[in-house]
Amino acid sequence: MSPYNFAAGPSSLPAPVLEAARAGFENWDGSGQSVMEIPFTGSEYESIHDNAVEALTRILKIPDGYRVLFMQGGAYGQFSILPMNLLRGADRADYVVTGHWSRRAAQEALKYCSVNIVADGENSNYLKIPDRHLWSLNCEAAYCHITTNETANGVQFHTLPDTGDVPLVADVTSDFLTAPLDISRLGAIYASAQKNIGIAGLTLVVVRESLLGDAMPITPSVFDYSRLATCKSKVNTPPVWAIYIAGLMFRWIESEGGLEEMSRRNANKAEILYEMIGNSDYYSCNVERQDRSLVNVCFALPSPVLEMKFLESARASGFLNLEGHSAAGGVRASLYNAVSEAAVVALTAFMDDFQRLESRVS
Amino acid sequence: MSPYNFAAGPSSLPAPVLEAARAGFENWDGSGQSVMEIPFTGSEYESIHDNAVEALTRILKIPDGYRVLFMQGGAYGQFSILPMNLLRGADRADYVVTGHWSRRAAQEALKYCSVNIVADGENSNYLKIPDRHLWSLNCEAAYCHITTNETANGVQFHTLPDTGDVPLVADVTSDFLTAPLDISRLGAIYASAQKNIGIAGLTLVVVRESLLGDAMPITPSVFDYSRLATCKSKVNTPPVWAIYIAGLMFRWIESEGGLEEMSRRNANKAEILYEMIGNSDYYSCNVERQDRSLVNVCFALPSPVLEMKFLESARASGFLNLEGHSAAGGVRASLYNAVSEAAVVALTAFMDDFQRLESRVS
Repeated sequence: MSPYNFAAGPSSLPAPVLEAARAGFENWDGSGQSVMEIPFTGSEYESIHDNAVEALTRILKIPDGYRVLFMQGGAYGQFSILPMNLLRGADRADYVVTGHWSRRAAQEALKYCSVNIVADGENSNYLKIPDRHLWSLNCEAAYCHITTNETANGVQFHTLPDTGDVPLVADVTSDFLTAPLDISRLGAIYASAQKNIGIAGLTLVVVRESLLGDAMPITPSVFDYSRLATCKSKVNTPPVWAIYIAGLMFRWIESEGGLEEMSRRNANKAEILYEMIGNSDYYSCNVERQDRSLVNVCFALPSPVLEMKFLESARASGFLNLEGHSAAGGVRASLYNAVSEAAVVALTAFMDDFQRLESRVS
Repeated sequence: MSPYNFAAGPSSLPAPVLEAARAGFENWDGSGQSVMEIPFTGSEYESIHDNAVEALTRILKIPDGYRVLFMQGGAYGQFSILPMNLLRGADRADYVVTGHWSRRAAQEALKYCSVNIVADGENSNYLKIPDRHLWSLNCEAAYCHITTNETANGVQFHTLPDTGDVPLVADVTSDFLTAPLDISRLGAIYASAQKNIGIAGLTLVVVRESLLGDAMPITPSVFDYSRLATCKSKVNTPPVWAIYIAGLMFRWIESEGGLEEMSRRNANKAEILYEMIGNSDYYSCNVERQDRSLVNVCFALPSPVLEMKFLESARASGFLNLEGHSAAGGVRASLYNAVSEAAVVALTAFMDDFQRLESRVS
């Protein structure tokens, strides 16, 4: 059996994407060159860039008035780069803290402005999204930041909040392209590529044009959204290979039926796993039902010792990278687009077997 | 005939590196996974990282007291990131301007400090390195910055300048690993990977430990040298695939005889091309002999019209990417490590043929 990879990222690539990438690796478009070798100033790269942007625009239904930027530095880099670009002269921003990553985003923003914590899920141990009627939004904030899915604790926004006239911006790294997303309701989104866009080393930004043009003077040129928007993200050499893979991923999603189909599959995969956990008195998930992530299913066993044993046994059986995030512990199955329903069904069968074997031992 | 690629970057990869990378692309180390898919928190990635750093340390003979960092954002990103990290409370830095890239580096540094232009080759149209006895170094500068090789105008430092107690820092992007480099004389170097380190999307920094620990408060966490130094560059997900390719490049250089052998080959390739140009009354290189780049050979034809014709004809004959930098025009052959002597010999033969054909036509 080929191993099943449940990593939180870098995640698996769909087999058809790996297969298509082989042509780019060896002899791209009959050019005798690898995509890794082509100059970024030529028409070959231009077509790779344009095809990727156009495919993303189609599957995400990006409306007019938005720009797609290809950057480097990861989502964590955007924790700084976004405020540098989108404070636009304001001295404060709103942050909703729902777990490990949104807390880090808020901490990093403190380098550039006052941060108003709209709500913080700490009291619930980040096992739910704080109730929206208790949020304290600031109407003078330059933007309101959320993390749509928290990979460490496994909570997810299933609908976007209403932030009135304050632009909503979102780190969508871990659930990007797992379901449709109404871009028109957002001022900007950003995502590291290594979950559902492809490989590590690429960061994608989609930003509303009307928010551009007022970056802080300290903003590095290569991270200035406006500059990237005016030159197709070629302020300097873009990560060509990672953008090529992203284009293949976008077209794969399109060929599979688009984001509606991804959403159907992902909801189904998560349902299979959460149902197995729910029906068990051995495995448990403490995240509140309505905020459970469809992407990162976090669960526990009766004891940390059993969790260690489970992870070892899983690895030996070909179920890889099920360790929980270091900040949360436990077990975590990440169900990105490339993870098949068959993998999830196999995992639940393994979980069943493990539980039965352990019950017999004890 | 397979085409010859003379691109200024992304540049060609040596055939043995592409061949070795195929294993990582398909089924790395028998893991059933592509290197593009492995988690960066596991022992598999750890070994890729460590092997790359160790191989670089061997070939570059990096002394104790230096750290190797893998970053993102390119050398242009470092135009900002380096001052953020290395001003260390000072308010000024020295910059030697020898062409397009060092001028940009100095301009970008203005966002963070006063910039003292030590010397500017503008009067000579950047066709030589300004005479060192005319440099006005500032002893209160936090560092003195040079660009060891200028790709647009084809001038190169063939020896490092003496900057006294002020740490010398260098953008070595375009001649890194083309010859030995005495790291002990430098406070820090940085290089984009897409010339001689591998593929676009990775930036390498080597920095003296004693300069670490005093980054500006506005420094993004993912670009804080000290933070990267303490966690093997894993502040966030590193560009795994590009680091893997870099490791293969370092080991290829080692297996070929190291930097001494690279230096011998590169000097030889440049000599063949400069000699052909020098013996011709058709092709011309205006860069002063002692400062001519061994990496980017820039030359002109009798007229811009002939240059256009030359570039077209070259492309049709399989000599790719010979266009000069947009800021300089003309013709440019970039002779990075992966470009063979045979490619240069073939190019000079083509140049000879082109000239003879044109002379007959006119």
